[in-house]
Amino acid sequence: MTTQRAGAQNPDEALRRFYGVIPAGGVGTRLWPLSRAAAPKFLHDLTGSGSTLIRATYDRLGPLSGDRIMVVTGKVHRSAVLKQIPEIQDANLVLESEPKDSAAAIGLAAAILYQRDPEIIMGSFAADQVITPVDVFQEAVREAIHTAAQGYIVTIGIKPTLPATGFGYIRAGRNLHLDGAPSAHSVIEFVEKPSEEVARGYLETGNYSWNAGMFVAPVALMLRHLEANEPELYTGLTEIAEAWDTPSRSEVARRVWPTLPKIAIDYAVAEPAAAAGDVAMIPGNFSWDDVGDFAAIGRLNPAIENSKLTVMGEGARVFSDNASGIVVSDTKRVIALIGIDDVVIVDTPDALLVTTKEHAQEVKKAVEHLRASGETDVL
Amino acid sequence: MTTQRAGAQNPDEALRRFYGVIPAGGVGTRLWPLSRAAAPKFLHDLTGSGSTLIRATYDRLGPLSGDRIMVVTGKVHRSAVLKQIPEIQDANLVLESEPKDSAAAIGLAAAILYQRDPEIIMGSFAADQVITPVDVFQEAVREAIHTAAQGYIVTIGIKPTLPATGFGYIRAGRNLHLDGAPSAHSVIEFVEKPSEEVARGYLETGNYSWNAGMFVAPVALMLRHLEANEPELYTGLTEIAEAWDTPSRSEVARRVWPTLPKIAIDYAVAEPAAAAGDVAMIPGNFSWDDVGDFAAIGRLNPAIENSKLTVMGEGARVFSDNASGIVVSDTKRVIALIGIDDVVIVDTPDALLVTTKEHAQEVKKAVEHLRASGETDVL
Repeated sequence: MTTQRAGAQNPDEALRRFYGVIPAGGVGTRLWPLSRAAAPKFLHDLTGSGSTLIRATYDRLGPLSGDRIMVVTGKVHRSAVLKQIPEIQDANLVLESEPKDSAAAIGLAAAILYQRDPEIIMGSFAADQVITPVDVFQEAVREAIHTAAQGYIVTIGIKPTLPATGFGYIRAGRNLHLDGAPSAHSVIEFVEKPSEEVARGYLETGNYSWNAGMFVAPVALMLRHLEANEPELYTGLTEIAEAWDTPSRSEVARRVWPTLPKIAIDYAVAEPAAAAGDVAMIPGNFSWDDVGDFAAIGRLNPAIENSKLTVMGEGARVFSDNASGIVVSDTKRVIALIGIDDVVIVDTPDALLVTTKEHAQEVKKAVEHLRASGETDVL
Repeated sequence: MTTQRAGAQNPDEALRRFYGVIPAGGVGTRLWPLSRAAAPKFLHDLTGSGSTLIRATYDRLGPLSGDRIMVVTGKVHRSAVLKQIPEIQDANLVLESEPKDSAAAIGLAAAILYQRDPEIIMGSFAADQVITPVDVFQEAVREAIHTAAQGYIVTIGIKPTLPATGFGYIRAGRNLHLDGAPSAHSVIEFVEKPSEEVARGYLETGNYSWNAGMFVAPVALMLRHLEANEPELYTGLTEIAEAWDTPSRSEVARRVWPTLPKIAIDYAVAEPAAAAGDVAMIPGNFSWDDVGDFAAIGRLNPAIENSKLTVMGEGARVFSDNASGIVVSDTKRVIALIGIDDVVIVDTPDALLVTTKEHAQEVKKAVEHLRASGETDVL
């Protein structure tokens, strides 16, 4: 497949085509018991900013898109999301009756937007990431929009600060010398989560970025790659999309959605598009965190002065003596910590987690064990 | 003051004079938040035996005293104690309207029993101690009763297993060569909690025992020393005691009790009696624990096989991975422990403690802090 690329448009024209998409899925298992099926990560304020992650994501896109923002989330989160984003239009709140992975979620947004206007450039940004400063992010997205307008699927690559093994990487090629997007590079390939040794090698070359799953692309181009790689998924999504802004939305969605194949957007679109030379990358020179575990919460919420203990939670009543680490309090209980270092305590009404910063990644194990032993009431 | 001592009585006669007394006071601050004002240490099953400490104390005395057992406790614990010991006679449940320290508590028991029968030998044993094996304890008490019958205030000394700094010590003298009490020794003095260095010296001599606050004595002799050392206290207690088994019990107790001086039985009776040569000691060759902190709970409740984690609590739902220590669960919450060693977690409906075995003694600090900052709802 080859793509005919348009030249640069009027810059304002490109920006006017932009439409934000926020896929809000994923429980955030490593943040259990704070984050769980009924209250996933994106519904929490994990930075002490006063905003939940999804609200902060919405607000970050606002200056670029206005109210042209679509949220794709699980049906069970409808009222929680509406509470966070009361201004969202009903037709822009896409509710999945069951999870179908990222290609279906992002693909449905693309298909619906394509029906409304085939010229739309969508920008998809996960609901549970923390980004500062916001204006640097927005500037990168603007470059991505200009790049997309010239016929690319554009990802924003995060400059790695350590040889992380928990992220996929983007291998960048040459600068594309595009109008309005001076830092746009070609993408040679997406690579899977590496070993630490391999990751160190990536950092040394300087050509690799973290893949934060951010995609800015003309919906038409997204759909063309989806059709080529996952025709069954494409057909189903198009059927739903054609019915979306009509009275038969519910009936068609209810019938078709459960039949769709589950596949990640990386396999369905990003990797084959990169292989076809259709993917570009804008370097994101902002600070980015996917709040992958409770150690991240410690990083994002510095301890108050003269204390080594980070305390989160509105009603928190914490007494500590010679203690350091992180306390997340989702109850009104008194919590006393004595003589314990780098501890992670997450106190919720029906579940308590006690671990250390060092072991924060292993919280997933506890969740898996609880699921296996049928203690699903707290998951 | 000199004491005329009787010779040995018929051994059965001495045992028939015995009356158990259980002072049940003290919150057990170092066991917060499990133990607290409304639910002190003695109302908990801290050994996993299925019995609360006060019930186990009562049952330990039963074979010696039958139902001749008096409990002295706070008025607020009336219904909790009755739930533990439903068979106790109303006149044997002595309720303090406010705490007045051990001399008033034990002295009132002595004074009431003296009114009933001046020949009674009382045996006072705190409600919150753990003793095994029970038959070795009972044999020591029998020796103590025979010793008491021959005119002594008798304490049972615990053979020290380490140079503890948290207990007072008893310095024994010569063997008294008494009938029915071959191991009875004179007591030269009671000494206060020592430094560790001093305690090491005590252990080397072999003449020192831990003072577990156990007293077996003729009530007449107890009262004689109380009268000599604390005449005001003696007078007040006698006034209450004379009214106790009459209709005016409540009226007199309500009027007199609040006026009584607060003093420990050690100062009011034991130390001056020892100085007068009236105190004897029976070595207690049983295992004894005052459950002074959560580390003690770990000792008393060995971890289940193949686990380094001791879990207490009926409804406990604990998941642990690479964790060791003690979990006391007083809720139905799921508790997940990951990668943390020698931790102490006490989970109650309104308060949570997280510390380590090493710091278990410092729990008192947290309680003091909470009291100082007005968080008394959880104390």
